Amino acid sequence: MKNTIEVCFTPQSFQLYNREDKLVVIIDVLRATSCICTALHYEVGMILPVASVAEAREYQNRGFLVAAERQAQKVEGFDLGNSPYEYMNPALKGKIIVFTTTNGTQAIRAARDSHKIAIASFLNLSAICLWLLKQHHNIILLCAGWKDFFNMEDTLCAGAISEKLEHSGLFEVSGDSALAAKYLYQKSGADTYGFLSASSHFNRLLKLKLEKEIQYCLTPDSAPVVPVLEGKYLVRAV
Amino acid sequence: MKNTIEVCFTPQSFQLYNREDKLVVIIDVLRATSCICTALHYEVGMILPVASVAEAREYQNRGFLVAAERQAQKVEGFDLGNSPYEYMNPALKGKIIVFTTTNGTQAIRAARDSHKIAIASFLNLSAICLWLLKQHHNIILLCAGWKDFFNMEDTLCAGAISEKLEHSGLFEVSGDSALAAKYLYQKSGADTYGFLSASSHFNRLLKLKLEKEIQYCLTPDSAPVVPVLEGKYLVRAV
Repeated sequence: MKNTIEVCFTPQSFQLYNREDKLVVIIDVLRATSCICTALHYEVGMILPVASVAEAREYQNRGFLVAAERQAQKVEGFDLGNSPYEYMNPALKGKIIVFTTTNGTQAIRAARDSHKIAIASFLNLSAICLWLLKQHHNIILLCAGWKDFFNMEDTLCAGAISEKLEHSGLFEVSGDSALAAKYLYQKSGADTYGFLSASSHFNRLLKLKLEKEIQYCLTPDSAPVVPVLEGKYLVRAV
Repeated sequence: MKNTIEVCFTPQSFQLYNREDKLVVIIDVLRATSCICTALHYEVGMILPVASVAEAREYQNRGFLVAAERQAQKVEGFDLGNSPYEYMNPALKGKIIVFTTTNGTQAIRAARDSHKIAIASFLNLSAICLWLLKQHHNIILLCAGWKDFFNMEDTLCAGAISEKLEHSGLFEVSGDSALAAKYLYQKSGADTYGFLSASSHFNRLLKLKLEKEIQYCLTPDSAPVVPVLEGKYLVRAV
């Protein structure tokens, strides 16, 4: 029997899913999961996701290196923000980074009771698919969205993963949201950047002059790692 | 300035929307809003939507004619179910029907604080668009979904309305869910029935041998009326 792929569009709706025995893949393309993939690809040691800025501040007071983003911008007083470029810094090699963002780390928190949590973005598209094929498990692709609203970029990434996994013959999409993600990815064609040009968060980031960052985040396989949650920490499984 | 079209995929997420001054259009293609359009087209007097079966039973005890559906089937002991064909009965002309369904009447309830509530389905696609063009109001298309999950058929109908309204030049879609609905409708092409063949509720109804009903519900403009909520009752505005 084939394994199933479900897609959940927002952390809010994740509570509706039967999730205890599912492998949950968190997607926050712009930009939390792109940062996580980039960081681990550039040999950051471990990432400790936390949901609130208050929690992040506690860790900072205890001497941790802390990244905090809200409303697409770095929160004042913290060491790092939510730009993947910040994580290409050799000075971060082997370090632990505490990490909180508007949507991505909320999604990780929402999934804490599931069988296992992994991280996906376009940057690790092939790597995550290859790894998922070896897990022989039913999966839920959990899109971080924007403040519990559906967003397009995470949905396209979920669609890309769904299509690749279905193509293997070992998985099948289950439920209308997974179908929709797959169809939207098919409709986007090769030009993900162009297809997203009318979408909300894309334009929010363009206003902050982050065009190059968006382009980086949409480039498949630039950071071919597989981050998974082990205890409280995100570490490389691959 | 153009009026905006937002799309909300589920009653659960409707609370996130800024909705007080919005005209809310409820969509439950399979089959609540298709029934409502059919009933008013076939000259049923008024429809009183109620959220719970218990409420429906109270009305029945007071002598009202009551329709009740749960899990795609008529609830035992009630007069009518959720099949549009039942509402083509000349004996129902001018009558008041109390109506409760799994998703559609929940969506109507979720929207009760909005500026105005109207009802859409494929059956009144052109009529509702023409009427909306005359309202000069920002709108939210609220899909009833299935038990707070995203569903494909309501999304396609929302996409069809969005595309028609945008085409007029007086409206523009706003937000990623409206964009997604429009793109999915475009991808579905002329063959809505075929496009839905992998979707969940379509298959749930096929198992109940309701193929003809599905085909009817997907036929544009078969019941060209505009139901709106006036006080507690759904009546024909057009």
